[in-house]
Amino acid sequence: MSLNDARPRRVVNGGTSVNYGKEKPRDIVLGRNVHISCHEVTEPDADDEVTGEREAYMASVLARYRKSLLERTKHHLGYPYNLDLDYGALSQLQRFSINNLGDPFIESNYGVHSRQFEVGVLDWFARLWELEKNEYLGYITNCGTEGNLHGILVGREVFPDGILYASCESHYSIFKAARMYRMDCEKVNTLLSGEIDCEDFKAKLSLHKDKPAIINVNIGTTVKGAVDDLDLVIRTLEDTGFAHDRFYIHCDGALFGLMMPFVKLAPKVTFKKPIGSVSVSGHKFVGCPMPCGVQITRLEHINALSRDVEYLASRDATIMGSRNGHAPLFLWYTLNRKGYGGFQKEVQKCLRNAHYLKGRLTSAGIGAMLNELSSTVVFERPQDEEFTRKWQLACQGSIAHVVVMPNITIDKLDDFVDELIERRVVWYGNGKLQSPCVAPDIGEDNCLCVLHK
Amino acid sequence: MSLNDARPRRVVNGGTSVNYGKEKPRDIVLGRNVHISCHEVTEPDADDEVTGEREAYMASVLARYRKSLLERTKHHLGYPYNLDLDYGALSQLQRFSINNLGDPFIESNYGVHSRQFEVGVLDWFARLWELEKNEYLGYITNCGTEGNLHGILVGREVFPDGILYASCESHYSIFKAARMYRMDCEKVNTLLSGEIDCEDFKAKLSLHKDKPAIINVNIGTTVKGAVDDLDLVIRTLEDTGFAHDRFYIHCDGALFGLMMPFVKLAPKVTFKKPIGSVSVSGHKFVGCPMPCGVQITRLEHINALSRDVEYLASRDATIMGSRNGHAPLFLWYTLNRKGYGGFQKEVQKCLRNAHYLKGRLTSAGIGAMLNELSSTVVFERPQDEEFTRKWQLACQGSIAHVVVMPNITIDKLDDFVDELIERRVVWYGNGKLQSPCVAPDIGEDNCLCVLHK
Repeated sequence: MSLNDARPRRVVNGGTSVNYGKEKPRDIVLGRNVHISCHEVTEPDADDEVTGEREAYMASVLARYRKSLLERTKHHLGYPYNLDLDYGALSQLQRFSINNLGDPFIESNYGVHSRQFEVGVLDWFARLWELEKNEYLGYITNCGTEGNLHGILVGREVFPDGILYASCESHYSIFKAARMYRMDCEKVNTLLSGEIDCEDFKAKLSLHKDKPAIINVNIGTTVKGAVDDLDLVIRTLEDTGFAHDRFYIHCDGALFGLMMPFVKLAPKVTFKKPIGSVSVSGHKFVGCPMPCGVQITRLEHINALSRDVEYLASRDATIMGSRNGHAPLFLWYTLNRKGYGGFQKEVQKCLRNAHYLKGRLTSAGIGAMLNELSSTVVFERPQDEEFTRKWQLACQGSIAHVVVMPNITIDKLDDFVDELIERRVVWYGNGKLQSPCVAPDIGEDNCLCVLHK
Repeated sequence: MSLNDARPRRVVNGGTSVNYGKEKPRDIVLGRNVHISCHEVTEPDADDEVTGEREAYMASVLARYRKSLLERTKHHLGYPYNLDLDYGALSQLQRFSINNLGDPFIESNYGVHSRQFEVGVLDWFARLWELEKNEYLGYITNCGTEGNLHGILVGREVFPDGILYASCESHYSIFKAARMYRMDCEKVNTLLSGEIDCEDFKAKLSLHKDKPAIINVNIGTTVKGAVDDLDLVIRTLEDTGFAHDRFYIHCDGALFGLMMPFVKLAPKVTFKKPIGSVSVSGHKFVGCPMPCGVQITRLEHINALSRDVEYLASRDATIMGSRNGHAPLFLWYTLNRKGYGGFQKEVQKCLRNAHYLKGRLTSAGIGAMLNELSSTVVFERPQDEEFTRKWQLACQGSIAHVVVMPNITIDKLDDFVDELIERRVVWYGNGKLQSPCVAPDIGEDNCLCVLHK
């Protein structure tokens, strides 16, 4: 999920879409309800069943829609979703209303569930992050945001008067959580890479030494794919006088939480370190037709969550009530097919292809940044919204990014770079092709503008 | 979703499940992680691709699972899910990673979405609840709980120091919301029917006349299917001196929010009354393979939600970030096929069948309650957990219920009642068959125990 997931275009009255150049202020359009395009639901005619016209109409809408999905899937680069799905074996289950309501470890009388698959998937993740089977609680969520909402809530229940610390490049759901939960929140500065700046973290911690700390650690930020240094975060806490029973760390591993364990030399996300919870998305690196995620929490903290009898009214420790029972099946199927070994290969391929993309961009005179543990390549924002939309790039301010996922091949990257080079001649035309300066975003070393190259 | 969705069985160390009789205290098992059954994810062998053994193993697990789903679907009565699904036309779309991230009305660069279908569905619901197209905001949620979390959050943002009022038979997500959002909450008593007791509501309102009121109104409670009297709630607010700009009403229409409009003489849920939001589940009466819901909010309140610039960090007015793009397709497909007319017929059938069930039970000497606007039939809790599990009844205390959905036929109800009668002879055996007293739950008029019949 990108900070730009839902980047609004400025919309003027009447619903016409107006593109804005990057120098214009970026309006947030909230509280509007503009019907740009919509397949209206209409009331069937009395004779529809006889004529079959309605079925025919719906079939034609769906066939056109399928065609557009094929095309859109082909040209997708910007969001961290693995679109290479092969779930034919599961289509036999689509007709069932599978619902894992409540907690995966508390049986329900509703029989059409997939808890036995869900628990298998959770065990796999607990093993990945080195927590014993009987020492975690977890569940399969609807998305990365739910995982973050859960992690921060557990933190707050453990430390009701704790202060939430998160780098300013954290996913927006972290700040949404702070607001929802009425928590005091300190935004911590970041380094140029996008990592949390532990100097600033220390300074902010020192302001509230009397209050416990709840920390969101990014295992891959949304925009730059930067990985916060978990060890340094813990050391900073210790150095500032926070004992292990005075802080709670939630790791937002939306994308890289699953990739990092397979990167050689990468610092480990593991419950052997004093962290409370990790969440990761299932529809990103794994690939799944619908958004989902995995949330693993240290069991003792869930017990803290349950100390208030009132809270038990919820009968479970999840955020949601009814839960999608298909998602665990998709995850179970892929994990079983690929295994740790398969994921390792795919991670290596992604990192390799990300380096290839960065290389091709810089050879073409386009400044680019690729963090060490990441497959997110950051570069100048294209000047043309149509191009951005075609390749479905996520943008922020002056920069755009491509997140190299397993379904993104060298061929596709070549097509993209070739087209980008071609278009830039038009955008920066007149023979004096000059790259824009993106040093403030990606650093002077990575910038290839006339000043920095 | 029932209060009993995730009714825990008492579990002793070692993971063996122990049934308890109704006289024993009902333990809540939280913070346990008991692996009762689980399809473990295992690492593929090196030669799996050659031998095909892994594929064969997975296919056999899935085939067995499919068989159990068929059986479980056949014997389901207790949860308000329409299990009569016919979505073959949509199976061609399963292979796409469809994600409506953020707000349905704010375009995103991610192209593989189904917003055009989602907005069509939302318009249909806005029309049903009589709100103009340009006066609502809404989105398709992951479940009824998300709708309630959203509605209560909007209420709190409109009235930051408001008190939350909800009847004690409200869904647990309402109290979960109060805790999550750190709101003061007053639980209001209910009448025997399960409806909110407006005398008690008035008394509790009078205690906090200086604070605005945020009210959850149940359009169908979880256990008894009782519909709170919206008109009386509004009148009570007015009589107690609450002007329309001093309260916010959220209607939790999980199940009946969609059925009520089709019940003749039923009081209307409509935005022509001073309500702020309505939520309904999509996987219940409509029927959908995965949990989902619809949330419609009066536009002006969403604007209130957005007045704080900090909040804009979320770029949207939803609770989640990534959102399941398949759910809108399922809803769009069903709404188009059935139309208002089709739903009307199905609601009538459900009410008719619910009356039939109640009649069969009482003829057999089993006390039962059926609220006027409801298809939820409440009766004594069966004495045998195996029977309860077979028919997947939701239970609470001494009572159980069947929620008659469109897929529940007279034949199925007959099978159920016949088996229940047969078993009761065993449970209450020795020739002196006596019905237990359930008057405290369903009233003396409905009870058929030796004292009340």
